[in-house]
Amino acid sequence: MMKGIVLIMDGMGDRPLKELDNQTPLQAANTPNMDKMAAEGITGIMDSIAPGIIPGSDTAHLSILGYNPYEVYTGRGPFEANGVGVDVLPGDIAFRCNFSTADEDLIVTDRRAGRIKSGTKEIVEVLNTMKLEDYPDIKIIFKESTGHRAVLVLRGEGLSDKVSDADPKVEGNKPKEVKALDDSEEAKKTADILNQLVKKSYEMVKDHPVNLKRIEEGEPPANIIIPRGAGEVPVVESLNDKYEVNSACIAETGLIMGIGRFAGMDIIEMEDVTGGIDTNLYNIRDTIIDQVKNSDHDFFLINIDGADEAGHDGQIKEKKEFIEKVDEIVMSELIKLEDVYIYLTADHSTPISVKNHSGDPVPVIIRGPEVRVDDVCEFSEVACAKGGLNRIRGSDVMNIMMDLMNYAHKFGA
Amino acid sequence: MMKGIVLIMDGMGDRPLKELDNQTPLQAANTPNMDKMAAEGITGIMDSIAPGIIPGSDTAHLSILGYNPYEVYTGRGPFEANGVGVDVLPGDIAFRCNFSTADEDLIVTDRRAGRIKSGTKEIVEVLNTMKLEDYPDIKIIFKESTGHRAVLVLRGEGLSDKVSDADPKVEGNKPKEVKALDDSEEAKKTADILNQLVKKSYEMVKDHPVNLKRIEEGEPPANIIIPRGAGEVPVVESLNDKYEVNSACIAETGLIMGIGRFAGMDIIEMEDVTGGIDTNLYNIRDTIIDQVKNSDHDFFLINIDGADEAGHDGQIKEKKEFIEKVDEIVMSELIKLEDVYIYLTADHSTPISVKNHSGDPVPVIIRGPEVRVDDVCEFSEVACAKGGLNRIRGSDVMNIMMDLMNYAHKFGA
Repeated sequence: MMKGIVLIMDGMGDRPLKELDNQTPLQAANTPNMDKMAAEGITGIMDSIAPGIIPGSDTAHLSILGYNPYEVYTGRGPFEANGVGVDVLPGDIAFRCNFSTADEDLIVTDRRAGRIKSGTKEIVEVLNTMKLEDYPDIKIIFKESTGHRAVLVLRGEGLSDKVSDADPKVEGNKPKEVKALDDSEEAKKTADILNQLVKKSYEMVKDHPVNLKRIEEGEPPANIIIPRGAGEVPVVESLNDKYEVNSACIAETGLIMGIGRFAGMDIIEMEDVTGGIDTNLYNIRDTIIDQVKNSDHDFFLINIDGADEAGHDGQIKEKKEFIEKVDEIVMSELIKLEDVYIYLTADHSTPISVKNHSGDPVPVIIRGPEVRVDDVCEFSEVACAKGGLNRIRGSDVMNIMMDLMNYAHKFGA
Repeated sequence: MMKGIVLIMDGMGDRPLKELDNQTPLQAANTPNMDKMAAEGITGIMDSIAPGIIPGSDTAHLSILGYNPYEVYTGRGPFEANGVGVDVLPGDIAFRCNFSTADEDLIVTDRRAGRIKSGTKEIVEVLNTMKLEDYPDIKIIFKESTGHRAVLVLRGEGLSDKVSDADPKVEGNKPKEVKALDDSEEAKKTADILNQLVKKSYEMVKDHPVNLKRIEEGEPPANIIIPRGAGEVPVVESLNDKYEVNSACIAETGLIMGIGRFAGMDIIEMEDVTGGIDTNLYNIRDTIIDQVKNSDHDFFLINIDGADEAGHDGQIKEKKEFIEKVDEIVMSELIKLEDVYIYLTADHSTPISVKNHSGDPVPVIIRGPEVRVDDVCEFSEVACAKGGLNRIRGSDVMNIMMDLMNYAHKFGA
C-alpha cells in the first residue's frame, strides 16, 4: 500500500523582511532539497483554518487532520491534558493548572511557585489520592507538565465546563472563587468541586517533603493548585476509523502529541528532541525513515518545531539557518523515499516582525508518484502561490492525501 | 497603530469588450498609480459573496465587512431605512415605500406620483403624526428618500416581517391587501396595521398643501403611501466591537452609508458628491486623506460609485475615463500614504454588456508594509488573477486586513 506523510514545519511561514532584502527567511534560506521537492511536486498555498484567521498550532493541526476546530476545540484544558499523556475520555472536564505558592490564609504569593523545576511529580502522587467527601463519585486526576504547569481532569456524572477560572491573575490575592457560567446544576456542581479542590490541595501538600525542602532552601513551595481553562473533552471519530489508515504522530512537543492522541494516532517517542532550534534533527530524521520503511503505519503526522520558536523569539538568522538544517539533514533523506506521498507545509506563519502567529497562508508541496507536477521549482511563500494547487485549506489536506494514496471512496455513483 | 482602508470602486469589474480590443474598461484605462500599487502589493481576485453569485452593492459590502448577507440581509426595507438615516433598532420592521397617486376610490393612477421631485419632506412631517387607534403602542416612522421613494418603519411589540406587499404593480388597481405570510399572530397584526396605514395615509395627506398645489399645476399628487419589501432589522455586533477598531465609512450614496450605519461605523459626510461620474473626486480624496491623517479612526470603508453608474448605463468611454480620473485624482495621493494597508477592489462587476451587476470576480490589490509582494504589475481583472492572493472571498477581507494590521487574535495556542 502507498504511504503518506504530512510534514509540518511549525511556524515556518513569514513575511518579507528588510533585513533579508525583502525576502522571508524561507525565501532567503538555501534549501536545495525542498526546492527539488517543489520541482518534482505540485505546490500551492494553504490557509490552515481560513484566510486571515490566526491559528494556534493546536487548532491548525486539528484542521489539517480533518477536524473542525470550531467544533472540537473546546479549550486549552483537554488538549493540554492529552498532551501530557492523560488518557482523557469524552465527557471529562479538563483544566490547565498552575502549581502556585499560597500562605496560610491562602493568599497566592507566587503564581508559579518560583518556577519550580522538579518535584511536582512527587506532589502529584499525593494529590492523585484526593477524594472530596461531598462528591465521592467524581474521579480527580492530576498530572504534572513542564515547570510549574499541570493539568486536572474531572471525571464523573453531571459535570460541566461552564465554570470560571480560579487563577487570581495578580499575586497578593486569594484564588478566585470559581463560579458557574450558566444556570445549570452541572455548572454549579463543578464550580463547587473546584472550590473545594483548591483548598484541599493546599491542605494535602503544604507539608509535602518536596515543599518542606523548598522552604528550607528559601524557595517558594508548590503548595496549591490553581485551575483554569475548563473544557469538555469532545467525542470524535479517530483518524484511523475515519480514513481507514494506521496512523502515527512523530512530534517533539506535548501540544502536538496531544493532538495526535486526540486523533487516536500512535505516538512515536523520540530521544533528545527539544522543540527548539537545538533539537536533534538526526534523531527526527532517523525516526521518520525507520517508521516509514519498517513500521505498519501508513500515514504520518510529523511536526518539527524549531522555526516557530525562532519566529516567536524574533531571531531572523536562527530561523533561516534552522530551515537550512532541516533541509540538509531531514529533507535530503526524505527526498529519497519512493512510493510515498509527502505533504510538506507549515501549520501557520510566525513572522519575525510579529513574534507570534499570523493569518498569512503557508506554502505547500505535495510530492509523490502521481501528482500533477507544476512549474514551481522553489519552496517559498511567494513561489508556491503560483502553484498548481492554488489556495487550499487545512481541512482539504486529509481528503487530498487520501485521494492520492487511493484510500478514499467515491461519493456517489 | 496601523491604519487600514478598504477602497471599493463600485461596479468597476467588467468583461472584455470588442470595442476595446477585447479588453475590459479597467484594462484599457491608463492607470499608472493603481498599476504601481499592484507592483508594490499582493494581488488576486475576489468573489464578494461566492463564485458566480451576483451581489447587490449592499450584500457585497455586508460580506466584505464580515457579515453573512444570507443571515443579515432581511430585505431592502431595513437597509433603505438605514440609508436614508432612520435610526432603526433591532426588531423594527422596515419597508420601502412609494409615494403614489390615488383617486377617491383608492385606485392607484400613478405609482410614482408623477416622479415627484420635491415636497415629500413636508408630506412626511404630517404622516409622522400618524397613530392607529387599534394599535396605540405601535410607533410609525416615515422618512422621505429621493424622488417618489420613502421608507416606513414600524416599532413595537408583536410585529413580523412575514407580510406581503401593498404595491399593486399595475396602475388602475387599488393597493393590494397586505396579507400575513405565515400563521403567526404577529404577521396578522402587522398586515392589519399596514392595511389601515395605507388608507389612513390617503386621508391624512390628500389635502396637504403640497398636493393641492400639484393638483392646481396639473401634477399627480403624492397622496398615498404604498409599502413593500418588509424586513426585520437584524441584531448584529458592530464592526468596532467585532474587530476592536474605530471605523468610519466614507461613501457617496445612501445605500452604502446605510451599510456603514448598520455596521455601527461613523459616517463621514462629504459636500458635492453625486455618486455619478460627475462627482467631486477632489472632495472625496481630501476627505480620505484628512481622515487617515488627522482622525482617530483606524479603519475605513470607502466607496466611489461612478464606475457602477457608467456600467448600468452601458457607457464604455465614460466608465474607462472615470476609472482614469479616480487613478489620477485619488490614487495619486493615496499611494503616498505610508504605514497604511490599502485594500483596493470593487464590490462586484457591472459589465457594460449586461448593464447590471454580474457574478464575475473582481480584482484586488493589498498594498502595505508587510505584504508578500507578487510579480503582478497591473491592476486589472485578468492580471490580478495571477497574483499571490489567488482567489479569495468578500468574507475573507476583514480577517486578512485585521491580521495584517495586527489587530486580530490567535484562535488556539
